[in-house]
Amino acid sequence: MTAEDPPQPLPKLAVIAREAGVSVATVSKTLNGRSDVSAHTRRLVGEVLERRGYPRQRIKPARGSLVDVMLQRLDSVYALAILGGVEEAAWRMGVDLVVSAVVARTKNGQPPPAWLDRLSARDSAGVLLVRTPPTATQRAWLADHGIPAVIVDPRRKPPRGVPVVVSANRAGARTAIEHLIGLGHERVAIVTGRPGVPCAAERLAGYRDAMAAAGLRIDPRWEGCGYFQSEGALRATRELLAALPEPPTAVFACSDPMAVGVCQALGERGLRVPDDVSVVGYDDSWAAANATPALTTVRQPWPELGAAALSALLSGDPPARTELATTLVVRSSTAPA
Amino acid sequence: MTAEDPPQPLPKLAVIAREAGVSVATVSKTLNGRSDVSAHTRRLVGEVLERRGYPRQRIKPARGSLVDVMLQRLDSVYALAILGGVEEAAWRMGVDLVVSAVVARTKNGQPPPAWLDRLSARDSAGVLLVRTPPTATQRAWLADHGIPAVIVDPRRKPPRGVPVVVSANRAGARTAIEHLIGLGHERVAIVTGRPGVPCAAERLAGYRDAMAAAGLRIDPRWEGCGYFQSEGALRATRELLAALPEPPTAVFACSDPMAVGVCQALGERGLRVPDDVSVVGYDDSWAAANATPALTTVRQPWPELGAAALSALLSGDPPARTELATTLVVRSSTAPA
Repeated sequence: MTAEDPPQPLPKLAVIAREAGVSVATVSKTLNGRSDVSAHTRRLVGEVLERRGYPRQRIKPARGSLVDVMLQRLDSVYALAILGGVEEAAWRMGVDLVVSAVVARTKNGQPPPAWLDRLSARDSAGVLLVRTPPTATQRAWLADHGIPAVIVDPRRKPPRGVPVVVSANRAGARTAIEHLIGLGHERVAIVTGRPGVPCAAERLAGYRDAMAAAGLRIDPRWEGCGYFQSEGALRATRELLAALPEPPTAVFACSDPMAVGVCQALGERGLRVPDDVSVVGYDDSWAAANATPALTTVRQPWPELGAAALSALLSGDPPARTELATTLVVRSSTAPA
Repeated sequence: MTAEDPPQPLPKLAVIAREAGVSVATVSKTLNGRSDVSAHTRRLVGEVLERRGYPRQRIKPARGSLVDVMLQRLDSVYALAILGGVEEAAWRMGVDLVVSAVVARTKNGQPPPAWLDRLSARDSAGVLLVRTPPTATQRAWLADHGIPAVIVDPRRKPPRGVPVVVSANRAGARTAIEHLIGLGHERVAIVTGRPGVPCAAERLAGYRDAMAAAGLRIDPRWEGCGYFQSEGALRATRELLAALPEPPTAVFACSDPMAVGVCQALGERGLRVPDDVSVVGYDDSWAAANATPALTTVRQPWPELGAAALSALLSGDPPARTELATTLVVRSSTAPA
């Protein structure tokens, strides 16, 4: 189009759709560079659009090489371990990551309009939500713009229809309890995470699975809640020890910081780890290797979760749920009963 | 341009330049969306380009809302604390961050061509190098493409011409030594970081400044090298204690992990902290607050460094060097001599 051309009204999308033999939605998707339009259809629609005088720059290219990673905060070691895995996978796949802690700045579930505008303008190939499900508003907006999303390690129940990538929490907990049962422990208590967090419920289920499979009694009095915090686990273990007729010979803490709290409560009672009571943690965080005694724990595959989530996001057709296996790491906090 | 138009050869840049009354370089910069072309010139050149039949989409918009952040690794707590500050500032300024650990993947100082292509294609507004100066090749490439760069907290001597944002290491160290001198210490040893790292040299200079200002003796035998590692500081302190005619009453460790190593070496000799020897660390990392005793240390303004670096990068005319002040945090590892 040169400067001399008078401006022409553009034909309606319905006219283009009829001429190309596709739906109006497909024309709209093509104009918006949606990745769910095949290269063939894109070319077909593009030819009609061009013939009908649509300026080429109005047709967005197919979504490009940028992926958005949204974290809740940039100071969680777990979130950052996931991000490290995403970054390495992105490198291999030839995409770049736009990283933001935008969730922390979402008010009343409403993502900030300026951020949405930028996301839309840069043709993000998808949004990877680290530990934080999208709000209903965010989800609707992403769907409207045809931007795929995947959640990795959600801390709340994720909405239907958004694929999740998680570690196998239930199986991981089961492995931990089987390790204790293999050492001859029968009175095994658990200190769980915050109720409502999916992984907390899954680890509790894994504990119950293993206990039931070994014919051991499942009793709510053996289940304390530590809210994923060291202090909470300290209190919960004190309460367990005060309430139970005989102390447990092993405690499964659903996170490493909670295992530290459990050890502290046992110490207050003069119970030694692992001589009197075995303790297993969860995560294999820095604290696990550096605690005294070093903790037997369940290692979560943080970087692998990130890499798998990026693969799922860019696959075009991610499975609803991807589970990655954990590894039991045996150190010095567990011993025969 | 409609499909019926026959393709026309585009006029040479020299023709456009003459008609617009600017240099060929300016025409080229305008086409490439370089930010160092004023809005007025951009409009002027744009009009000539359009009149001469240049398709509008060939003229790139001025550099946009993406800034590249290059980290050496994603697992350094310091680098991540800086990144957190950059992220918050980016949010306020309405730009988004493309985060990569590309430096780790640079071979023989040659940045991977695929990454450079993507960087160029997305019109990065600039590159923020966290703790890692660009290689000569990277620098030349960035300069050729008119992409500004700023280095924050460099771990090697930065090249001339690339602006740096650092914390005031020399003044920070001086404050630490003045604190010890104020407590009556005269025999003050130092365990320094890795030679060749700029901040290590600056902290050593700050130590010498404060000692000299107080009329105290500066003696190379009081200066050990711990290479910024706990183990290294343990060894260096053992050597200092073995070699010196009388033990120091205070040790300044140029990082918190090194302070932990210093305390360990003192403990081996039966020297208590702070009763027998005072110890000061540097950084105010997690270790400082959680050590026993909790460490007196020099807090580095990590997030503020990140925010200042982003401001400098986007200012269009960053100062060659920006220094931010540190804060002395007094805890339990220092006491009167």
